[in-house]
Amino acid sequence: MGTSDIVKFEALSPAEFFRRNREIAGFSNPTRAIYQTIRELVENSLDATETFKIPPSIKIYIDYANQSKSWISIYAEDNGIGIPGNEIPNVFGRVFYSSKYRIKQHRGIFGLGAKMVVLYAQSTTNTPILVRSAPLKSDAIYEYQLMIDITKNEPVIVSQRTIENKHGWHGTAIKVVLEGDWIKAKRRVEEYLRRTAMVAPYAEFILRGPDEDDVIKIPRVTTKMPDPPKEGLPHPKSVDVELIKQLIQRDPNVPIFEFLIENFDGVGEIIAKKFLDFVGLQPDMPVGKLMNDELINFVTKMREFNEWKRPRADWLSPIGEDILAEGVRFVLRPEVVFTVTRKPSSYMGNPFIVEAALAWGGAIEPSDKPTIYRFANKVPLIYDEGNDIVRKIVDEIDWTQYRVKFPAPLAIVVHICSTKIPYASAGKEAIAEVPEIENEVRNAVREVARKLRLYITRKEKEQELLMKYAIFSMYGEEVVNALSYVSKADLDELRSSINALIREKLRIKSLEDLLTNHSIEGDEDGNNNEDQKHEPSS
Amino acid sequence: MGTSDIVKFEALSPAEFFRRNREIAGFSNPTRAIYQTIRELVENSLDATETFKIPPSIKIYIDYANQSKSWISIYAEDNGIGIPGNEIPNVFGRVFYSSKYRIKQHRGIFGLGAKMVVLYAQSTTNTPILVRSAPLKSDAIYEYQLMIDITKNEPVIVSQRTIENKHGWHGTAIKVVLEGDWIKAKRRVEEYLRRTAMVAPYAEFILRGPDEDDVIKIPRVTTKMPDPPKEGLPHPKSVDVELIKQLIQRDPNVPIFEFLIENFDGVGEIIAKKFLDFVGLQPDMPVGKLMNDELINFVTKMREFNEWKRPRADWLSPIGEDILAEGVRFVLRPEVVFTVTRKPSSYMGNPFIVEAALAWGGAIEPSDKPTIYRFANKVPLIYDEGNDIVRKIVDEIDWTQYRVKFPAPLAIVVHICSTKIPYASAGKEAIAEVPEIENEVRNAVREVARKLRLYITRKEKEQELLMKYAIFSMYGEEVVNALSYVSKADLDELRSSINALIREKLRIKSLEDLLTNHSIEGDEDGNNNEDQKHEPSS
Repeated sequence: MGTSDIVKFEALSPAEFFRRNREIAGFSNPTRAIYQTIRELVENSLDATETFKIPPSIKIYIDYANQSKSWISIYAEDNGIGIPGNEIPNVFGRVFYSSKYRIKQHRGIFGLGAKMVVLYAQSTTNTPILVRSAPLKSDAIYEYQLMIDITKNEPVIVSQRTIENKHGWHGTAIKVVLEGDWIKAKRRVEEYLRRTAMVAPYAEFILRGPDEDDVIKIPRVTTKMPDPPKEGLPHPKSVDVELIKQLIQRDPNVPIFEFLIENFDGVGEIIAKKFLDFVGLQPDMPVGKLMNDELINFVTKMREFNEWKRPRADWLSPIGEDILAEGVRFVLRPEVVFTVTRKPSSYMGNPFIVEAALAWGGAIEPSDKPTIYRFANKVPLIYDEGNDIVRKIVDEIDWTQYRVKFPAPLAIVVHICSTKIPYASAGKEAIAEVPEIENEVRNAVREVARKLRLYITRKEKEQELLMKYAIFSMYGEEVVNALSYVSKADLDELRSSINALIREKLRIKSLEDLLTNHSIEGDEDGNNNEDQKHEPSS
Repeated sequence: MGTSDIVKFEALSPAEFFRRNREIAGFSNPTRAIYQTIRELVENSLDATETFKIPPSIKIYIDYANQSKSWISIYAEDNGIGIPGNEIPNVFGRVFYSSKYRIKQHRGIFGLGAKMVVLYAQSTTNTPILVRSAPLKSDAIYEYQLMIDITKNEPVIVSQRTIENKHGWHGTAIKVVLEGDWIKAKRRVEEYLRRTAMVAPYAEFILRGPDEDDVIKIPRVTTKMPDPPKEGLPHPKSVDVELIKQLIQRDPNVPIFEFLIENFDGVGEIIAKKFLDFVGLQPDMPVGKLMNDELINFVTKMREFNEWKRPRADWLSPIGEDILAEGVRFVLRPEVVFTVTRKPSSYMGNPFIVEAALAWGGAIEPSDKPTIYRFANKVPLIYDEGNDIVRKIVDEIDWTQYRVKFPAPLAIVVHICSTKIPYASAGKEAIAEVPEIENEVRNAVREVARKLRLYITRKEKEQELLMKYAIFSMYGEEVVNALSYVSKADLDELRSSINALIREKLRIKSLEDLLTNHSIEGDEDGNNNEDQKHEPSS
């Protein structure tokens, strides 16, 4: 008996692979499937709005399609830039077809989400997805009912029509029927939206459940929006041999000097020349002439060369300190919020920015550890916290250095944005370990922690001052009475000069200032540098 | 400006998708890439040997291909069933082409590993993979140098030749050159092999590093091998609409009665009839005649029907209590090992078996928590322990109930085998949460923990007995002397009867038995049921 009799080989289409292994993309059980579906649809909607500076309005309606079979219908609508009519079938019906395979910050990153939703619906209820979309300024609204030919990885158009766009609507609306457990998924979906709102306070959400009065509205808190990311070129340090080969194939005759300038981020004439000297190649040599060994040497040198510019951050769209503070203030209702947006950094040629917020007191419940909210490209990460680098870093910090004694009402928000978030799985819940990112997270958390220490220290000092003032005033009153008796001077006049004397000695400008704590938030920034001296060394 | 001007859509080939997102498959950095490469090659080798009851002999040779560029060459060779010559290009050069898309227990599960190795090598060193393979009883050895056309997802044959198979060799040998950090990866690779040996003591491994004397040999400890798994049919409870549609397309004219018997696990004539009554369909109706609504109803009823047989365990290949004990004893060198192989169970129609071993004392270092070794389909899971269900379950157990006081020399080994391990990512490190599996893990760990309690209890009792015996013997000696003096009887005779009397009163059959503890392992099994009464309720 030969090997070919006992082992059978076969090819799967990408659609079939992901149908069989849907756990990889987060569709591991009926509860998780509902959560994952809503999450994928919301993220597509946000990518179609905020990325183009449209303040997002997102509606999600949940209904029972057939309660006895636990069929749930999910409707999601946005006011985004829409999808061109002819692209709709492929965008929903072909795995590995997407607009997200670009160097630019997206919430969606694998371009898989919408197809997974269609695959899951099809496998559980065999119903098509309904898609209605109008691009910006489109005269028509395009409507499709779609399924996927899983064996061929091709869209199947079940029905199709074009509707006149009378009111100039633009956006995308989707309706899908799938098997799932809404009751169990509800809490997680709500938590997901609450956290999304924290980093996108310029968006509004309506989530309506199967019961009429089961409606959650998350209003728009600000009209400020972060600048959208631009689309970028690969950074010379992030390349691999395969990418260079693909770029050469496009035009093998272009001189290597121009090849560098045209295809890579931040490469101008001076840097290109310097680099070619470093490798020892002639600038006018056609790039297609590179032999295999030279090609590998070329790539190795690209990664070794130290004079490239830093990766550009224009491809990124951080939330910004103000918007982040507004979002956190609205969702967590703390006594005080400190935020920081760090400078851009990079790993393997991919730019990234870390932002952190620290919220303290107010409506935050005291707990034994800081509560953590993690975000990557503005997407909240809800599962797998135990394994995350952020949890690890926050737990390693000695919080007593920052005057925090647990249980304490302390929440830490960390947002990482990058053109390439190193997710450990297509379910997008955990970030793979990257030392450069870990460093930046540590620095960001320390930076807001220092602001907290300053705040707590001042608050303690001011409490002390207030106490002193109260005691001095009490004795002052005795003195006023005695002096007035001896000198016959006016009682009120005496009291006012004594009080002025006390304020002067205690260096209190105005009593109201002290009582309302206004001074604290006002000048915290100016004190950061001085404060850094006390930073515990790492 | 319309939408199509600002958004570009594109299709990626499966190869391009995984090249760009290699983190998903575990290739997240140069250290991890080396580890993942060796792991994928070893697992393919084990699938090609043990699954066909060939005792595996696996050789791995590591070398520097170019030390200044951190290029590592990895050579892996096995004595498995080989790959038919004409299949070699696709098996290594086409993503989503594999022999592992079958209902049967494999170590490899996504059929992705070998292609990821080729993609990674190609992207970092642009060198082809060298494959040499001879199927069982093949007259020829087939040799290929292969790369992948990433844009087309097709193999590129760089060179090819056929060699006469003079010595009747069979197996597969692979050589690949990739960028990586061997020094950092080494420890993890060794730990991986050590753990693999724990559950496959019938395999032998040689790992040779770049230095001549840097060789690790893990010998074969037993020639006993578990029965290989058979290939199965889907269980009627595990189906989805899409699968039924695919099966119908193969032959729409077959009567629905035969359709059920032919395509599903454990469906005989009686059960098929009962089920068709339950759905209300005629047995002779051609299955292709099912309308869409009927089809969905059919699938829903398949999942609801309660009289299907349990999924079969023949598709599984557990390690078995004896072989597992041998492996654990060899690798951990404990004082004692207890093992259990639970009965087959199932989730969503997928059969699975949980096995556990508990090792105590000996060379195990005492620690504050039990040390855990996790395995899925005989693959050690090394990363992500913090999030794993096994860690959670072991930590929830109140070990004082089992007479364990920490720090204690306690190691727990858990092996889950299934036709479908619900991995949370293609990197195969964490298992998604499935309640049925969690229950079985809990029961398995408790079962071995009860054996440990019995062992510790007996050991304590025997210590006590030994102490009593020592004391009685001491006083006995006084009595013997006094009696001998009074009665003039023979001293030795008296001593022997007194000692016999002591042994009888203490119910000690033989002193040697007590001293060597032999009695304990001998009859532990008989006492399990009685012992269960004291089980803390969950």
